[in-house]
Amino acid sequence: MERAAIAAEFRAIQDSICADLEALDGKARFRDDPWTRADGGGGLSRPIAGGALIEKGGVNFSEVHGPLSPAAAKALKVDAEAFYATGVSIVLHAHNPWVPTIHMNIRYFEASNDNGQPTTDNRSWFGGGIDLTPVYVDPSSAKRFHHGLKDVCERWDARYYPDYKRWADDYFFLPHREETRGVGGIFYDRVAPTAEKSVEHIFGFTCAVGRAFASLYAGAASPMRDKSFTQRERDWQLIRRGRYVEFNLVHDRGTRFGLETGGRTESILMSLPADARWAYDHRPEAGSPEAETLTWLRKGVEWV
Amino acid sequence: MERAAIAAEFRAIQDSICADLEALDGKARFRDDPWTRADGGGGLSRPIAGGALIEKGGVNFSEVHGPLSPAAAKALKVDAEAFYATGVSIVLHAHNPWVPTIHMNIRYFEASNDNGQPTTDNRSWFGGGIDLTPVYVDPSSAKRFHHGLKDVCERWDARYYPDYKRWADDYFFLPHREETRGVGGIFYDRVAPTAEKSVEHIFGFTCAVGRAFASLYAGAASPMRDKSFTQRERDWQLIRRGRYVEFNLVHDRGTRFGLETGGRTESILMSLPADARWAYDHRPEAGSPEAETLTWLRKGVEWV
Repeated sequence: MERAAIAAEFRAIQDSICADLEALDGKARFRDDPWTRADGGGGLSRPIAGGALIEKGGVNFSEVHGPLSPAAAKALKVDAEAFYATGVSIVLHAHNPWVPTIHMNIRYFEASNDNGQPTTDNRSWFGGGIDLTPVYVDPSSAKRFHHGLKDVCERWDARYYPDYKRWADDYFFLPHREETRGVGGIFYDRVAPTAEKSVEHIFGFTCAVGRAFASLYAGAASPMRDKSFTQRERDWQLIRRGRYVEFNLVHDRGTRFGLETGGRTESILMSLPADARWAYDHRPEAGSPEAETLTWLRKGVEWV
Repeated sequence: MERAAIAAEFRAIQDSICADLEALDGKARFRDDPWTRADGGGGLSRPIAGGALIEKGGVNFSEVHGPLSPAAAKALKVDAEAFYATGVSIVLHAHNPWVPTIHMNIRYFEASNDNGQPTTDNRSWFGGGIDLTPVYVDPSSAKRFHHGLKDVCERWDARYYPDYKRWADDYFFLPHREETRGVGGIFYDRVAPTAEKSVEHIFGFTCAVGRAFASLYAGAASPMRDKSFTQRERDWQLIRRGRYVEFNLVHDRGTRFGLETGGRTESILMSLPADARWAYDHRPEAGSPEAETLTWLRKGVEWV
């Protein structure tokens, strides 16, 4: 497949998601913030803030290429001098503590030794995923979310949901807290074409993940967006957002790779919440809804 | 020198600083939170919160030892199977946005191939430093702080202030923001005894840094703690604290090494503020006090 076709479809997915999210929010509009990269390519970041539903977030597209530094090649474990990468990244933080934070990323990467030329071997791959981070885990909402993901996956391969669900459990995990970021979702990385799976198949699945995002978010957010809350729930939301910041800055590979290789800081850190809080050794009261939520933040919960 | 003597003096410095800070704050008391480490050693974390001056902070002592994993040895660039480390770490975040955040660390590290036995070569070293992170840079306060550091350094070696001031500029720097964390201070790491500098000299200097901390903080905090502020200054404080979180989670070697090697999470993340904020591409208005502060966040400002 041509790079340009992949990037064009990703860009169309960005537009489609932004339109759906503006309709869902009902108040805020995405801002267009195009940028260019000195070494090649650029992107269109689309931040949003102060909505009726969404407090802060963004739907970012990028298409970047150029020389690959030896350090970056080593970090990616590829023997290559140049790269091409395109993708869409989303994080949405809602005002209401009953509404989960959500994240989506779809991406295509190509390593080459001929700057600007497509590769002919399998040093190109796709990755993607969607995961949900509730402030308070609502098992019925988590089940609905995972069923939705399973439905998307099963249209492509019956193995995708179980395999990529487990991958998300492993990836969205904070070892220093011994907890998962939220209730997981699906995650896959470096999936390259094989004799069994064509590039069109993997690309098609990746686009299906992107196309499924807006309705999955609506399914998680709509039932909860008008539920009343008090300072107690807001306080817990801030603590949980602190953990979200920890995951993104300490563990998230995309964030770390981006910051270390001179990526566009504002677009990378779009993922951070408006407000977050830390308290020394914060422990919710035994038996409280907050303590109940912590019991769900572990690997291997089978929601489906 | 005996490890036990170093640790005992560090522990005494912790006590002395806590007493001075409680007197300075006038309201909050440090809590004792002792902990032990499964692989050897432990610590005494002393968090503080909700003071008249200090919103959140801690003065932590630790003395840990045990086997050194190959990954940890590689990260430390030592060829050793065991280690011993002791130190005091402080971060204080004040309520009032006119009061700077301050950080201090003094540490001793010893690598060995005989678990539990002191080394006889120079695979042991000291490190330390104090740095100041104002929400609004006040040049006269920064000058007073640096003069105080210079006075401490000059009692030990005329090169320490210029050398360790430059080291702090380089260390407390956020490449992805192209700004220093604050107005710097002094920083040194892996300073080992030599023919010219005995272990007693380096230890003595390191203790002098620790002993100077409380009055340096009082000098920065006392003139500003009762200055009135509005939501505008509070908002800027939250944004600047977001940068503090970014530095600590993305760049700070102690934080990263600690989290990656299974250190005690609550003690390591004691450094994070109560509340922090992020806003997409936040830019203060040209000519504003916030914009003026950004002009000072660069390497090489000679405050003395």
